[in-house]
Amino acid sequence: MTETRTLSLEEIESLSLRALVAAGTTEENARPLAVATAATEADGVASHGLAYIPIYCEHVQCGKVDGQAAPILSTPKPGVVAVDAATGFAHPAIDLGFEALIPTARAQGIAALAVRNSYNCGVLGYHTYRLAQAGLVGLGFTNAPASIAPSGGSRPVVGTNPFSLAVPDADGQPVILIDQSASTIAKSEVMKHAREGKPIPVGWALDSDGNPTTDPAVGLKGSMAPSGGYKGVGVALLTEVMAAVLTGATLGVHASPFSGTAGGPPKTGQFFIAIDPGATSGSSFAGNVAGLVEAIRFQNGAHLPGDGRSAKRRQARTDGVAVSVATLDKITAILA
Amino acid sequence: MTETRTLSLEEIESLSLRALVAAGTTEENARPLAVATAATEADGVASHGLAYIPIYCEHVQCGKVDGQAAPILSTPKPGVVAVDAATGFAHPAIDLGFEALIPTARAQGIAALAVRNSYNCGVLGYHTYRLAQAGLVGLGFTNAPASIAPSGGSRPVVGTNPFSLAVPDADGQPVILIDQSASTIAKSEVMKHAREGKPIPVGWALDSDGNPTTDPAVGLKGSMAPSGGYKGVGVALLTEVMAAVLTGATLGVHASPFSGTAGGPPKTGQFFIAIDPGATSGSSFAGNVAGLVEAIRFQNGAHLPGDGRSAKRRQARTDGVAVSVATLDKITAILA
Repeated sequence: MTETRTLSLEEIESLSLRALVAAGTTEENARPLAVATAATEADGVASHGLAYIPIYCEHVQCGKVDGQAAPILSTPKPGVVAVDAATGFAHPAIDLGFEALIPTARAQGIAALAVRNSYNCGVLGYHTYRLAQAGLVGLGFTNAPASIAPSGGSRPVVGTNPFSLAVPDADGQPVILIDQSASTIAKSEVMKHAREGKPIPVGWALDSDGNPTTDPAVGLKGSMAPSGGYKGVGVALLTEVMAAVLTGATLGVHASPFSGTAGGPPKTGQFFIAIDPGATSGSSFAGNVAGLVEAIRFQNGAHLPGDGRSAKRRQARTDGVAVSVATLDKITAILA
Repeated sequence: MTETRTLSLEEIESLSLRALVAAGTTEENARPLAVATAATEADGVASHGLAYIPIYCEHVQCGKVDGQAAPILSTPKPGVVAVDAATGFAHPAIDLGFEALIPTARAQGIAALAVRNSYNCGVLGYHTYRLAQAGLVGLGFTNAPASIAPSGGSRPVVGTNPFSLAVPDADGQPVILIDQSASTIAKSEVMKHAREGKPIPVGWALDSDGNPTTDPAVGLKGSMAPSGGYKGVGVALLTEVMAAVLTGATLGVHASPFSGTAGGPPKTGQFFIAIDPGATSGSSFAGNVAGLVEAIRFQNGAHLPGDGRSAKRRQARTDGVAVSVATLDKITAILA
């Protein structure tokens, strides 16, 4: 049983901000990350919330991320926004990019944001959700150090590479939020089993010859199993092409780890596509979204991707979020 | 053992064209479909090649597709091309759209083509491949009548909905081609087992309560199993949003079947995104593509998505393709 304490979202944001600044991050760079951390805790994704703040602080201190970085924006073509994150945090780079991406997508009908020299962007769906809040359909990709092997091979070449889709309803409020990685299970789950000395189920990871294993340590030296076999590899490759190949970021096969302090900045990338649904669908968008949502919600037991997070978000606004005391102790130590 | 006869690609194209015209398709509409049929046979995807010509002809004759349709193009915003296929074949509508999409993507950096009131587009990767031949990264989606149930539900709401990604190399030649559906297996495989009275493996299809079944007839009345469980549903929803919701096409849940003669035009949709890699990646694209391709090809036994099709294509150009005599007999009957 993990000991917890309940904090308001404002307290989570403030604590995150102060810790990041204490570790050497500019307030300008720390703020978007602190806001995202509170939102992630509100959504119930504790693995990517406050628990990451001590890691982010350590990464500023060891130079894996530059807390003082100033991301650089350019607009190489009318529909394309590019941001060089300058080995700083992904969040301020994405924020800067979105300021240009959103009006560009409205004007052009579709626009792209390519972020390079970046870092782990936390929960990808946090970012696409914001595009849906602007009334746009948002599609996002982020790459990661290699952990999935290609079909027929056994050496990792692509990360667990998530994609995310956020769709607004007729009122411009996000109603569908897909946010899923290309592996059967998150790598962090395999690491947790390794720490706890527990076997993993068949189908989670493969040994270094590409065979199934129930030993988490063997799996971590091998590769993560792609969801649905070769089709999971296809989704991971899609994300690698978008987030790394198309942005000029570092390929997962060359990127330094997101965990630990070794290897310097990972310089991975993010790619976002924002689409104005009124431009592509004429006047049919609102009716079609409602039709798809109803076809799912009207089935007993069925749910839309994102329903779980939005229920938790509503509750967190009034009730706050229970966070781990062990994590809070680590953050207090950073502030001391 | 299927009896076959070897035809050249030119013979396959010519035969397809004459059959479609004999059934009541204009030559202008029939030609892109005939060209695609020959290319599909060359790629070794026999299930979507000549075998479909008698079905297409029947669909022209029963009114499921309008062989005389004239697709209508509009450009609602600078980055968006929309085509109303007017319940005609998808291929001429996509061809018309690509004529505008390709120069628009080069000028804007990214552009979208939304096709509505359309029909089964055959092999999706045939179309994205052509974007890669134009030096663009092509991402495509097409929706289909519902056959996959949402997570937690048992009634189909989305089709086996494929997506496709085609990526050019430094010389502007397609080097990666992903083309995969959201189900574990193609629905046509389940139908084939039903015709032959053979059981299907667990994991291919579900009964109408959402439970696994080995009876193909029960599976066809239930739903297709999504690849990788809820993550396959996510990929099917991504495609449904792009190909139907964003185009103003008919949702899979409302679309008439692609097979058989009942129900009138399915009016499904296609959505393509074309990206100029030079605009988004600066000068890093060619090196990154080569790096990703090499990391996969240099592994013993590993292969890139699309490698199989391109090997067959090279051979088909010189050797022709063995096609089913039973199919040829059906086409001869149409021409008689």
